[in-house]
Amino acid sequence: MKVSRILSDSVLTVLLLAVSWGGAVAKDHLPSWNDGPAKKAILEFVSAVTDANGKHYVEPAERIATFDNDGTLWVEYPMYTQALFAFDRVKQLAPQHPEWKTQQPFKGVLEDDMKAVGASGMKGLMEIIMATHSGMSAAEFEQEVSNWLATTKQSKFNRLYTELVYQPQLELLAYLRANGFKTFIVSGGGMAFMRPISERTYGIPPEQVVGSSVVAEFQVRDGKPALVRMPKIDFINDKAGKPVGIYRAHRPPPDPRIRKLGQ
Amino acid sequence: MKVSRILSDSVLTVLLLAVSWGGAVAKDHLPSWNDGPAKKAILEFVSAVTDANGKHYVEPAERIATFDNDGTLWVEYPMYTQALFAFDRVKQLAPQHPEWKTQQPFKGVLEDDMKAVGASGMKGLMEIIMATHSGMSAAEFEQEVSNWLATTKQSKFNRLYTELVYQPQLELLAYLRANGFKTFIVSGGGMAFMRPISERTYGIPPEQVVGSSVVAEFQVRDGKPALVRMPKIDFINDKAGKPVGIYRAHRPPPDPRIRKLGQ
Repeated sequence: MKVSRILSDSVLTVLLLAVSWGGAVAKDHLPSWNDGPAKKAILEFVSAVTDANGKHYVEPAERIATFDNDGTLWVEYPMYTQALFAFDRVKQLAPQHPEWKTQQPFKGVLEDDMKAVGASGMKGLMEIIMATHSGMSAAEFEQEVSNWLATTKQSKFNRLYTELVYQPQLELLAYLRANGFKTFIVSGGGMAFMRPISERTYGIPPEQVVGSSVVAEFQVRDGKPALVRMPKIDFINDKAGKPVGIYRAHRPPPDPRIRKLGQ
Repeated sequence: MKVSRILSDSVLTVLLLAVSWGGAVAKDHLPSWNDGPAKKAILEFVSAVTDANGKHYVEPAERIATFDNDGTLWVEYPMYTQALFAFDRVKQLAPQHPEWKTQQPFKGVLEDDMKAVGASGMKGLMEIIMATHSGMSAAEFEQEVSNWLATTKQSKFNRLYTELVYQPQLELLAYLRANGFKTFIVSGGGMAFMRPISERTYGIPPEQVVGSSVVAEFQVRDGKPALVRMPKIDFINDKAGKPVGIYRAHRPPPDPRIRKLGQ
């Protein structure tokens, strides 16, 4: 009597499992994607690398997916979000820098003269970044970034930047994670600019956010320990820097010559 | 009839859960620790920061625990494991460097003359590290490290170094993780020396291993892309470098002055 009861419950459980399993198989994990070659390639790739009996199987610990940020995960027009943050910081700090009224590229920023700012080139942009991204403690900078992103709305859409993220990419991030991938941001943008919001915006924790950075230095200020952001580039995570950045944050990519030895 | 059967099964389930719950509460999560003040302090700390109604509560995303490696998680006597790896690499590479037979500190290493190696000081040690830890691709170096750690036994215990880890620390790592902490290694040792074994040895994934590093450079060699380890220090994750290393890997520590503003 008892055995049969357990058995009948087991049958019910199996049936319920089968129903939910059937539902799972039919589910579209990328509903915002067009049914085109990109979506098909993604689904086939994930299927191939997660098939333990297939020849393209990748161990879960090796499943790493990296995403660019600007223009990939969130908006990048009319200008990089971080550049707009830097321009706002210039305006905020201007009372302490009367010389900026006559000195490019700061004069251009204060007068909303983007042509003058652009004319200052990469050198000018670096001056703006250094003036606005260094000199404070790491915690102070994070607070500045957090406050700005929590209150500043994008000009065209009148929304916070953290709301202007691409739904298809959010679906792809979730789909990859559900298949054992660790998802990383690997962006030319500032590491310290992205980390305060990456977890709640994209589900990507700070240690999986790779970006450019300034040198930080441990100092004792007013008798208290502080990490101070110095006006010196530590790392530019762009172009040939990106594979280096991934190595710094995780492990080396496969070396084709080593693969050859193993084959 | 069916309802009563489901009910009686539910009662059984509740009883079983209660029994296992009672067992969980009584369980000693740090069985290798003496019942002394250190263990008591750990248990009280974890209890305080995980009590959502307490005044010391810490959000799960902020729960970070960092561990030193040498002498904390694994053995460091008679000498740092990575130094022994470097000495073995000197012997392995010696046929390509006939000049080492007469040149300190390499001569000392080849003759097992640790007094001569020690006399070469930090400068000598750096020469050994550069000669043995750079010039190859990141993937090749990882393979060298993996092979060495998989085959080299510690002299006194005749065991692999990855077996000479401290049981109390493994229990502490697991206990902290079970309470929502992310566990990090923050060591003066080489990042690329620890990452190949950190996950299976300590349950700590590569992105949560912070260490010293050499500069890596993206190059195309023989028409193939490679990340090459250069003979130049990128970062020394020791002493005042450790809080910097944590910032590079995660987020800033709290700034006491910002806390004051918030209070």
